Amino acid sequence: MRGPPLPPRASWQPLVERALAEDIGPGDATSEALLPSDADGTGIIEARTALVACGLPIAEAVFTTVDPTLAVERLGSEGEARERDLPLLRIRGRLRSILAAERTALNFLQRMSGVATWTRRFVRAIDGTGCGLLDTRKTLPGWRVLDKYAAATGGAANHRLGLYDAILIKDNHVSAAGGVGAAVRAARTAARPALRIQVEVESAEQAEEALAAGAEWLLLDNRGPDELRALAGRFRTRAVLEASGGVTLENVRSIAETGVHFVSVGALTHSAPAVDIALELIPEEA
Amino acid sequence: MRGPPLPPRASWQPLVERALAEDIGPGDATSEALLPSDADGTGIIEARTALVACGLPIAEAVFTTVDPTLAVERLGSEGEARERDLPLLRIRGRLRSILAAERTALNFLQRMSGVATWTRRFVRAIDGTGCGLLDTRKTLPGWRVLDKYAAATGGAANHRLGLYDAILIKDNHVSAAGGVGAAVRAARTAARPALRIQVEVESAEQAEEALAAGAEWLLLDNRGPDELRALAGRFRTRAVLEASGGVTLENVRSIAETGVHFVSVGALTHSAPAVDIALELIPEEA
Amino acid sequence: MRGPPLPPRASWQPLVERALAEDIGPGDATSEALLPSDADGTGIIEARTALVACGLPIAEAVFTTVDPTLAVERLGSEGEARERDLPLLRIRGRLRSILAAERTALNFLQRMSGVATWTRRFVRAIDGTGCGLLDTRKTLPGWRVLDKYAAATGGAANHRLGLYDAILIKDNHVSAAGGVGAAVRAARTAARPALRIQVEVESAEQAEEALAAGAEWLLLDNRGPDELRALAGRFRTRAVLEASGGVTLENVRSIAETGVHFVSVGALTHSAPAVDIALELIPEEA
Amino acid sequence: MRGPPLPPRASWQPLVERALAEDIGPGDATSEALLPSDADGTGIIEARTALVACGLPIAEAVFTTVDPTLAVERLGSEGEARERDLPLLRIRGRLRSILAAERTALNFLQRMSGVATWTRRFVRAIDGTGCGLLDTRKTLPGWRVLDKYAAATGGAANHRLGLYDAILIKDNHVSAAGGVGAAVRAARTAARPALRIQVEVESAEQAEEALAAGAEWLLLDNRGPDELRALAGRFRTRAVLEASGGVTLENVRSIAETGVHFVSVGALTHSAPAVDIALELIPEEA
Amino acid sequence: MRGPPLPPRASWQPLVERALAEDIGPGDATSEALLPSDADGTGIIEARTALVACGLPIAEAVFTTVDPTLAVERLGSEGEARERDLPLLRIRGRLRSILAAERTALNFLQRMSGVATWTRRFVRAIDGTGCGLLDTRKTLPGWRVLDKYAAATGGAANHRLGLYDAILIKDNHVSAAGGVGAAVRAARTAARPALRIQVEVESAEQAEEALAAGAEWLLLDNRGPDELRALAGRFRTRAVLEASGGVTLENVRSIAETGVHFVSVGALTHSAPAVDIALELIPEEA
Amino acid sequence: MRGPPLPPRASWQPLVERALAEDIGPGDATSEALLPSDADGTGIIEARTALVACGLPIAEAVFTTVDPTLAVERLGSEGEARERDLPLLRIRGRLRSILAAERTALNFLQRMSGVATWTRRFVRAIDGTGCGLLDTRKTLPGWRVLDKYAAATGGAANHRLGLYDAILIKDNHVSAAGGVGAAVRAARTAARPALRIQVEVESAEQAEEALAAGAEWLLLDNRGPDELRALAGRFRTRAVLEASGGVTLENVRSIAETGVHFVSVGALTHSAPAVDIALELIPEEA
Repeated sequence: MRGPPLPPRASWQPLVERALAEDIGPGDATSEALLPSDADGTGIIEARTALVACGLPIAEAVFTTVDPTLAVERLGSEGEARERDLPLLRIRGRLRSILAAERTALNFLQRMSGVATWTRRFVRAIDGTGCGLLDTRKTLPGWRVLDKYAAATGGAANHRLGLYDAILIKDNHVSAAGGVGAAVRAARTAARPALRIQVEVESAEQAEEALAAGAEWLLLDNRGPDELRALAGRFRTRAVLEASGGVTLENVRSIAETGVHFVSVGALTHSAPAVDIALELIPEEA
Repeated sequence: MRGPPLPPRASWQPLVERALAEDIGPGDATSEALLPSDADGTGIIEARTALVACGLPIAEAVFTTVDPTLAVERLGSEGEARERDLPLLRIRGRLRSILAAERTALNFLQRMSGVATWTRRFVRAIDGTGCGLLDTRKTLPGWRVLDKYAAATGGAANHRLGLYDAILIKDNHVSAAGGVGAAVRAARTAARPALRIQVEVESAEQAEEALAAGAEWLLLDNRGPDELRALAGRFRTRAVLEASGGVTLENVRSIAETGVHFVSVGALTHSAPAVDIALELIPEEA
Repeated sequence: MRGPPLPPRASWQPLVERALAEDIGPGDATSEALLPSDADGTGIIEARTALVACGLPIAEAVFTTVDPTLAVERLGSEGEARERDLPLLRIRGRLRSILAAERTALNFLQRMSGVATWTRRFVRAIDGTGCGLLDTRKTLPGWRVLDKYAAATGGAANHRLGLYDAILIKDNHVSAAGGVGAAVRAARTAARPALRIQVEVESAEQAEEALAAGAEWLLLDNRGPDELRALAGRFRTRAVLEASGGVTLENVRSIAETGVHFVSVGALTHSAPAVDIALELIPEEA
Repeated sequence: MRGPPLPPRASWQPLVERALAEDIGPGDATSEALLPSDADGTGIIEARTALVACGLPIAEAVFTTVDPTLAVERLGSEGEARERDLPLLRIRGRLRSILAAERTALNFLQRMSGVATWTRRFVRAIDGTGCGLLDTRKTLPGWRVLDKYAAATGGAANHRLGLYDAILIKDNHVSAAGGVGAAVRAARTAARPALRIQVEVESAEQAEEALAAGAEWLLLDNRGPDELRALAGRFRTRAVLEASGGVTLENVRSIAETGVHFVSVGALTHSAPAVDIALELIPEEA
Repeated sequence: MRGPPLPPRASWQPLVERALAEDIGPGDATSEALLPSDADGTGIIEARTALVACGLPIAEAVFTTVDPTLAVERLGSEGEARERDLPLLRIRGRLRSILAAERTALNFLQRMSGVATWTRRFVRAIDGTGCGLLDTRKTLPGWRVLDKYAAATGGAANHRLGLYDAILIKDNHVSAAGGVGAAVRAARTAARPALRIQVEVESAEQAEEALAAGAEWLLLDNRGPDELRALAGRFRTRAVLEASGGVTLENVRSIAETGVHFVSVGALTHSAPAVDIALELIPEEA
Repeated sequence: MRGPPLPPRASWQPLVERALAEDIGPGDATSEALLPSDADGTGIIEARTALVACGLPIAEAVFTTVDPTLAVERLGSEGEARERDLPLLRIRGRLRSILAAERTALNFLQRMSGVATWTRRFVRAIDGTGCGLLDTRKTLPGWRVLDKYAAATGGAANHRLGLYDAILIKDNHVSAAGGVGAAVRAARTAARPALRIQVEVESAEQAEEALAAGAEWLLLDNRGPDELRALAGRFRTRAVLEASGGVTLENVRSIAETGVHFVSVGALTHSAPAVDIALELIPEEA
């Protein structure tokens, strides 16, 4: 499987710099006191549990941001499912630099591989249903592009990135516009024509009204499997159907089997547990 | 219980701005197309599960950063344990502004209350043991001050904030210095004298050596309860003792009962599940 | 006509600050030498030519960024067609502040009203044809959101904002994918499903191939009116059709009358002449 | 002709980064979906109309900011007058990177070469009169250093860069100071002595008064050719004389022939039409 | 004496924020632990030595940047010579906020009043000679506008602010150009005409050559009083004369009496001792 | 003597960039007019007085920030005591770049070597007393890490870096807490346990009370030598003792000889005179 493209560096490098600043600040008091400034060493970053590797290029950037002279070699690939204790990255160079970057690099890897690993479990759970898995905007503040990238690395498709790249009409918009049909028509008139129009519907009647008005994507939020199955049977050839709401690893397959095109899951990014990753250090022989 | 101080706004406002930029970007395409620019409304943010509330001042800042004319009222307090469906914040003003800020505000609250709620469970688990709970540097990159604040709101004490505000001598430093005692002595000479010296020790012998050299805090990493109990019996009046490594909600009490002063738990911040919080919108009557 | 929403302030305030820094830098040497620091005055910003007003909120922000105590009153509205010498803004407060902000505020207004005025001429030129006018990404670097807003204020619809909010398959992508149909199919598989798929086609055969593969929007670049008319007759009910390439005020109507849904015009933003706007100052009577 | 120095990179690199962020944002959805991440190619940037080339170093910076591994070769020189279809730049490397930077690089080149080309026409128009051409502060907000550089590349001299590097006394300052002479004297006392003093005068009497007070440069705004000729005859050996106001390509020569030292023209930067420049892509043979 | 204008806030507010960040960072550990979050108080900032007050608006900005609800009242004026123990500022509001800002505010005041006080001594030393005092570019990195403002508050005139607002031809430029006259002529041709031309000369012959070429300001560096007197006698009506080099409080008057127009002194900003200023805190009665 | 570690580049590079921006701004008008853009040269930076060298890596960064192609070679080492006229740095490359960076690089070196040289005098003054020298938070705003580094290079130990890395209880905190003992106990409860607790005491009674409550470091401010000697005799084995207040080069030894562990001196950073350092330029032979 070809993995998703890494987001442009300009979109996440400021987060790397903020993360380093908050950990290192005015300096690593311990290493500066105890390690000679010219001591070199090698660090190996290893997974301590089975995982889907994600974030290696970010971790690499953490090390080279701290010290551009560090040499970083990738021992694994993004998206690869790895067993316990297999190495992910090798870093060589100034010991002080490796230790200053260590915790920040691991924190990125633990989160990103955590999301990818957790997402992969959902992907496996719906394997063969023909239904796709979507992430949501329930990402960690400041982490939108990295969380979305990690979810995609795990096998999800990315839903809209923000409020700016798709129209999604929810109940409040419907009320303000005076009905589902009116809302969709208003969006077709007032919004940028290049944006796809998605609309949340609560019944078959609303769905008909939305489609008649030109909607292309129906969001079915918090509907039970039976209702989803009925709606899918009736509308799946006329619009993209997305189910959402209260989806867990336990119930995701039953939703996916209803015939909807996508199931979207906030938990991919808001509740993924970290995976265990550590750095082993091999000081240089004198 | 008086809660911890909110970190200085300058330390987290840039994260608020980054989070808003990544979600709103060039604009909220849906609301701008469907809602009149002068429509007002009221939003109520409510917990959907029992939780320890945390992040209300940050959520408030999210709304007022989007639109300084929004009026935000707190209906709950930081650190308060709340039942399901109780309201946390009320926001009044331009509907477009409330909707543009909604997701980002909720994402902050879900994470921060998630960490506080999760931490509170550990605090309860060791209640009465006399042992304190410490967080770690395993925080989300970019989130150090907020994660630490949320852990403190949940009842943990904050360990060092970064590499700059305490000396923590680990095995690599010990190797480089030529032994635990030599490392502690070197730190006393070379580091800022105002910094406390903590050192990881792997045996009673190392502990004696560290204390003889002037260490004030011993980190006991990945030791079993029996070993911890023995070390605590011997050293707890001579130094601060901290246990760490593989601590879970299941085993934390058995560690806390060994007599160490602190148990530190990375999972407080690296694996806290989000809590469910939502915004209900009440559009203004015409 | 309801005008387009102003882009979020966070998206253009940095440009306001950059513009002020480059003009004022370490200070307004003349006014600081010659005007008392407490002298007040009133400035009136007036159009010197007929124009479509645009940029008043930005100009207001320029003044209040220089000095939050300035009182700014809008005398015109965004998108309003104004005759010569009619006032647009009134500013009252410290004379030094008004003069320090003057040139920057005028430069914003002259550009933005220039684009809106120029765009309105194209809108008028295709009035009644049923064809819409689109802008392009040929905006001034750093000015994307303001140029798009000004074009929308003039009456154009905004095309995609950047490379991130729509799929637009051009010849290079087609070559890489091995044909129009293959490219569209690849995009449907690999791109975010919420993004609309637009594709440039050079013949009716390519158009058929693109539509068969699921394209929703056909870009017809540098086609003559006859060819456009033939393509529109055949495809306008099956896809959105957009004509582009070499469009001028002279030929835009003949293109619009071919039956395409949209004509997109780079000149709206890359070659709009500035309109003449000036500030008249009324110093305060002592 | 030796061209003007490129402004310091620190003064325009932030604009390059803003421009890339607004176009690329979270990623180039099309290329990432359709082009292999390791595909290479070559792009040639060519002028489609005759022009004075300007902005090649900026365009180069756009490409290398997106991807430092791109190799950029200049095929033309700043300030060189080029015929149609002659190449300006060659870029080699990752196809995705070239396409991500393309539009932004072209937008810079089209604007900067547009200003240089337009300015060169004014320079040619006054050729042989002995009068110099000056730009103004009517530049695009955020573009001051680049617009001034482009005007200089076209052959204009740069007037003051901002409010901070020269004294320019206008009518409001004169009123506040109580007369032209008083204003000039006040400026000599209160302003930094290293700044040259320019003053706007409306009559020969005011000119005499200004010179008597120590002014070195007289601005003659909106004076007709006859009046300019009379003033030039009387004052051109005693001060620098600058004519301004309503200058066009049609009337600039008649003004330049009056004997003033400089004519300053806002239209150089506020109304220069873009020139047509495009990128041709040559994908790599496998 | 009317004081110099405060530089635009945008030019120094970033330094205020950097200064606060480096002192407060993630929080004031002591006050947060010991002071109730709602305790109020009043702080009085007082001079402990005689001084020329300078920096009050900056100190005020420090307090309100930390906490916009603090009320700050000025008890002294910029440039005022104050005796020992007289109050400068009163601050009222949250005790924690006052203490968090205290050290940074004092550090600004001690430096700025130090420069103003030190400069005033030089001004007094040359009182009545008719010679003016100039500062230099030997300011603290990052502090250019504030150091220049403080020197002006002390009574100096500001020399050029940077490399961009005047031409100053030194020996290296002379060598490159092939002589003083050639250098001045080249500058008149190639530099912006609005910039004044200053040139360093080492002899009467060079001075003649410079003046013949159009120089307006002669810098006489490291010349003895006798030589200065001779040069001043010969050239002071034909150009501005500035003496510099090794000027101290002891020798400044002898230089000023030679008839040069200005003496410039790097020590004003590079070696001004701090003055002693402190904050007295009056906690609120309960 | 091994010198202190250079602070992380991320902590001072923004100050370098600010300093260059304020000096160079839109360009070096003189060099750009007079020096060919391709002229090369060599600059030697030399001390003009005896000094303790400090800031060479910062000066190097100034040159390479202006122009990454400059080659900089260090001819001296940080902390080295140098005689007059000995060279510190050699820079080779574009003449314009060297001259653009010159003043900023020298300003950094003059300040940093000034602080190091001045500090070294205090270190020498207390040589052999067994008492250590500490700096304070009385640093130049924006310069905290560089001032602390320079003081350490001169031989001082660094006191706390800011309000965040140690507890220092002063009189206001004592009042708020209701006594020295109560304050120390409160700090032990409420503050991060990793922070050392320092407390200012005004008498032996307060010292006893502080120690009983768990204080580890006593600050003795503005106590005379006799009182210091008495307190040191009684407490020096039970806590770290620090004397401060009104310390000068004249009285520092008498204080150091009282038996306190440290004497802290604000003057190290707030009143260090600059040392004289200059750049000699050797233009390239053609």
